[in-house]
Amino acid sequence: MTKNQREKLSIFALGGLDEIGKNMYVVQYGHDIVVIDSGLMFPEEDMLGIDIVIPDISYLVEHQEKVRGILLTHGHEDHIGGLPYILRKINVPIYATKLTMGLVEHKLREAHLLQNTKRIVVDKHSEVRLGVFKASFFHTNHSIPDSVGVCLETPEGIVVHTGDFKFDMSPVNGNFADMHKMAEIGKKGVLCLLSDSTNAERPGFTGSERQVGEEINEIFRKARQRIIVATFASNIHRIQQVVDACHMYGRKLAVVGRSMVNVVNIASDLGYLKIPSDLIIDLDEINRLPLDQVAVISTGSQGEAMSALTRMANAAHRKVEILPGDTVIIAATPIPGNERLIGRTVDQLFRIGANVIYSTTSHVHVSGHGAQEDLKLMLNLMKPKYFIPIHGEYRMLLAHAKLAESVGVDPEHIFICENGDIVEFSDGKASFGPKVYTGKVLIDGLGIGDVGNIVLRDRKLLSQDGILVVVVTLSKANGTILSGPDIISRGFVYVRESEKLLDEANKIVYHTMERCLQEQVSEWASLKTSVRDALSKFLYEKTRRRPMILPIIMEV
Amino acid sequence: MTKNQREKLSIFALGGLDEIGKNMYVVQYGHDIVVIDSGLMFPEEDMLGIDIVIPDISYLVEHQEKVRGILLTHGHEDHIGGLPYILRKINVPIYATKLTMGLVEHKLREAHLLQNTKRIVVDKHSEVRLGVFKASFFHTNHSIPDSVGVCLETPEGIVVHTGDFKFDMSPVNGNFADMHKMAEIGKKGVLCLLSDSTNAERPGFTGSERQVGEEINEIFRKARQRIIVATFASNIHRIQQVVDACHMYGRKLAVVGRSMVNVVNIASDLGYLKIPSDLIIDLDEINRLPLDQVAVISTGSQGEAMSALTRMANAAHRKVEILPGDTVIIAATPIPGNERLIGRTVDQLFRIGANVIYSTTSHVHVSGHGAQEDLKLMLNLMKPKYFIPIHGEYRMLLAHAKLAESVGVDPEHIFICENGDIVEFSDGKASFGPKVYTGKVLIDGLGIGDVGNIVLRDRKLLSQDGILVVVVTLSKANGTILSGPDIISRGFVYVRESEKLLDEANKIVYHTMERCLQEQVSEWASLKTSVRDALSKFLYEKTRRRPMILPIIMEV
Repeated sequence: MTKNQREKLSIFALGGLDEIGKNMYVVQYGHDIVVIDSGLMFPEEDMLGIDIVIPDISYLVEHQEKVRGILLTHGHEDHIGGLPYILRKINVPIYATKLTMGLVEHKLREAHLLQNTKRIVVDKHSEVRLGVFKASFFHTNHSIPDSVGVCLETPEGIVVHTGDFKFDMSPVNGNFADMHKMAEIGKKGVLCLLSDSTNAERPGFTGSERQVGEEINEIFRKARQRIIVATFASNIHRIQQVVDACHMYGRKLAVVGRSMVNVVNIASDLGYLKIPSDLIIDLDEINRLPLDQVAVISTGSQGEAMSALTRMANAAHRKVEILPGDTVIIAATPIPGNERLIGRTVDQLFRIGANVIYSTTSHVHVSGHGAQEDLKLMLNLMKPKYFIPIHGEYRMLLAHAKLAESVGVDPEHIFICENGDIVEFSDGKASFGPKVYTGKVLIDGLGIGDVGNIVLRDRKLLSQDGILVVVVTLSKANGTILSGPDIISRGFVYVRESEKLLDEANKIVYHTMERCLQEQVSEWASLKTSVRDALSKFLYEKTRRRPMILPIIMEV
Repeated sequence: MTKNQREKLSIFALGGLDEIGKNMYVVQYGHDIVVIDSGLMFPEEDMLGIDIVIPDISYLVEHQEKVRGILLTHGHEDHIGGLPYILRKINVPIYATKLTMGLVEHKLREAHLLQNTKRIVVDKHSEVRLGVFKASFFHTNHSIPDSVGVCLETPEGIVVHTGDFKFDMSPVNGNFADMHKMAEIGKKGVLCLLSDSTNAERPGFTGSERQVGEEINEIFRKARQRIIVATFASNIHRIQQVVDACHMYGRKLAVVGRSMVNVVNIASDLGYLKIPSDLIIDLDEINRLPLDQVAVISTGSQGEAMSALTRMANAAHRKVEILPGDTVIIAATPIPGNERLIGRTVDQLFRIGANVIYSTTSHVHVSGHGAQEDLKLMLNLMKPKYFIPIHGEYRMLLAHAKLAESVGVDPEHIFICENGDIVEFSDGKASFGPKVYTGKVLIDGLGIGDVGNIVLRDRKLLSQDGILVVVVTLSKANGTILSGPDIISRGFVYVRESEKLLDEANKIVYHTMERCLQEQVSEWASLKTSVRDALSKFLYEKTRRRPMILPIIMEV
């Protein structure tokens, strides 16, 4: 920001992969910055070996004295998971509702960051001063309780960030979206609305989580043996409905999977999950009870290789054996890319003889994101002057923009932003400003950002056709070959059945080196290039593969 | 088969991955074997570097003198793509309808197998003697013309294999499914029906391809600039409808993409595609015509990286530039696993400013596989005594079995088979026989089956954390270190920024070797193990990564 831009209000997203602006939003006015959410992303298919991805926060590090705080809209990983990495770089206060803070604190405790992080729990009555900004919050419905939208009063006007939301007209636990407060904000006048675009392509209303409860009850009513329910650990409303079904049909409930146990504990402690006192049993106890008096709630609804459900399906779980006639409910839809994994788990469960109930053939899941009518309702309540669709891939932002137009937002006042695009507001007018640097940081093990394009390109190459290492020892004295060439391969061919090929390869390396040495090629770099080229050409002709070739020359 | 089993009729699948029995079915009676289809499969995510997968046909090679022929149901890759590999191992006659044979011949010509392969074109009137068997064919509807089901008269009774099918009640080109012939066969009495289970989980009828044509016409009617249609190259009915729309709305059509050009040529030559004489133009000509007089049909409906549409979307196609306001129709649904690729292509096209019409928000695709009501119609026409659901993952076979039960097939007479399961028929009774060896053969470049579990495991390892090669030269005379240790890494860390780590690693290797050499460890294997263990431990502590470590010892 240069000096004469200081009096503008700037809004922009840091990070986000395909999904633009999902994980971190920045609002700045002069010397004050407020950050909304600090999520992580999961790696894309071509990010081999990468564990997670976080936004590049160079901009915030550079301006850290201006950052007044991070406001969190809800407790999902893609909104809070980046905190342990980000707080190590910039130590700023965190504002979140009770459950969200409970989940964040668990995370910070594991990262030894709890003590040094200032944490402020907020609710719908809170008004928080953050430099020139004043933040307040309104409750929304989402697939995790205690989700809020943020209302930010700025010198240029009110900015509203919805977080992830839908309107659930019959919410579990009776926590309605705070439409009255939204209406009030809208009445005051909203300069700019930032709203969740995830389901902007879907017509209609998303529907109530209670529909899932009704399905679950119906399944519990009919089941004569054990019931295993797999769902997202953070979907506490759904867990509550499973608890209620257990209570109604006289079953005890065992909780399986590290994240499920963790969330159930935190949510119960904080009062977001109401569990009758003797309903939960230890997993070790399930075999002592009749089959029709037990239910299990578990992780693994995405078919993850090491998850509890997947192990059960492969008869590899230490404590839970699924029997023919048991009922398994997979209360989730596949996250794109997980279809085959889930399909395999379902197939394995059917092979055991379980009665599997899953999203293709049943209604055991509803989305936590509003569809087109939800989104129009939000737009109509807020009546924003300007609109920035957020949280979605480009086509979803575009679909959301069309919805906004359809309810009367001036198309000139809609800004479709890529990551790093800045929308600047000055004297009630908005325009695109200069771009801010943004990017993604790949985390692999303990390494933060040390794996970049070159390493990923090598992993990709290695994964396709493997590697051949060619080693030779030369005499320092006269440059003759003292030992080797030896060829060692991994991931290229099955060596025992390819001796002839590798012998020929060896000869080619030998002759190439001899020729180079005779021609007095003394630069090792050109020697290596000659070996690599000759070997590569030979192997491609013989196998149509292009393994990585790594020539190593030793000298004694 | 042992001697006393000879007089049984055996039916079993060879190959198929998740999708059981999709790619190759075997029917045997004593000394006569008939094969139905010879498909290839596409590799699963964990088959790194693999190009395609074919069934292991050891059984057929072993009994090749009994194989009377391969009957092909239709011209899709997953039903004919394995032929070039299989015909190299067993030279047997091929029976197919005209269009299917046209596509097969193109394939065999490329593989230099055309001249030595006996090819017999069949139609709905054909009756083919194959040892004790008599085969005839009935027309079905599918997403490629000239698809047939097979009716095989055997000494034990009639076996029917549907191929892939649906019932299209208003087919493009008027080629109705031959329900009269199916009814006749059913009336004669069917011993066993093998039927396509792909859409057995979907309620209702699949619907007519003509619906897609209506959508396409509507889009053509409205478009004011160029129209680009991407679809599967083999979907000739859909291509026909695009041709018809061009004719109706006064547009010329350019064909893009190698497989699209190829299929259009074959299908036109054989009369399956009717194109007005001056409608097709060369791609070079499109810029000479007004925007509203041009359409392009292209490959790339799955977002494949190198496809024509993807290149257009990335503004990287040499001849077609998509302009703001152009219309792009992606007339396909994502094959599971391709969602993100297609999503990215759609996003890129929207970024250019194109009007993109795709399956999420429009009805520009219908499946070629029958849904539950189609499947029940087939079952009701055939009234089989025994039923084997085929072509589908386990849960789909199970869903299909339930449908069969619901229309009156005795549940004891339904056989859900895994690959290699044999169903044997003797005296009108069926039972599971001994398993036949089956498996998959992975093809990587020119290598057929030389990449197995070890190579794949190495590729997986390499793809996750890369490799470290440790080289050292020892003196033959006294075992001292003459050169090295040198460490070379690929795909592990960005070397320039990790010098300290690699220096420390080097020291650890050096000290480990020195200690071993002092302790007179002379076995290289244990020397290597010590180095690998020490280095692995160090790197895991420092990085939480487990790269492959390859110690190499040279001796001079």
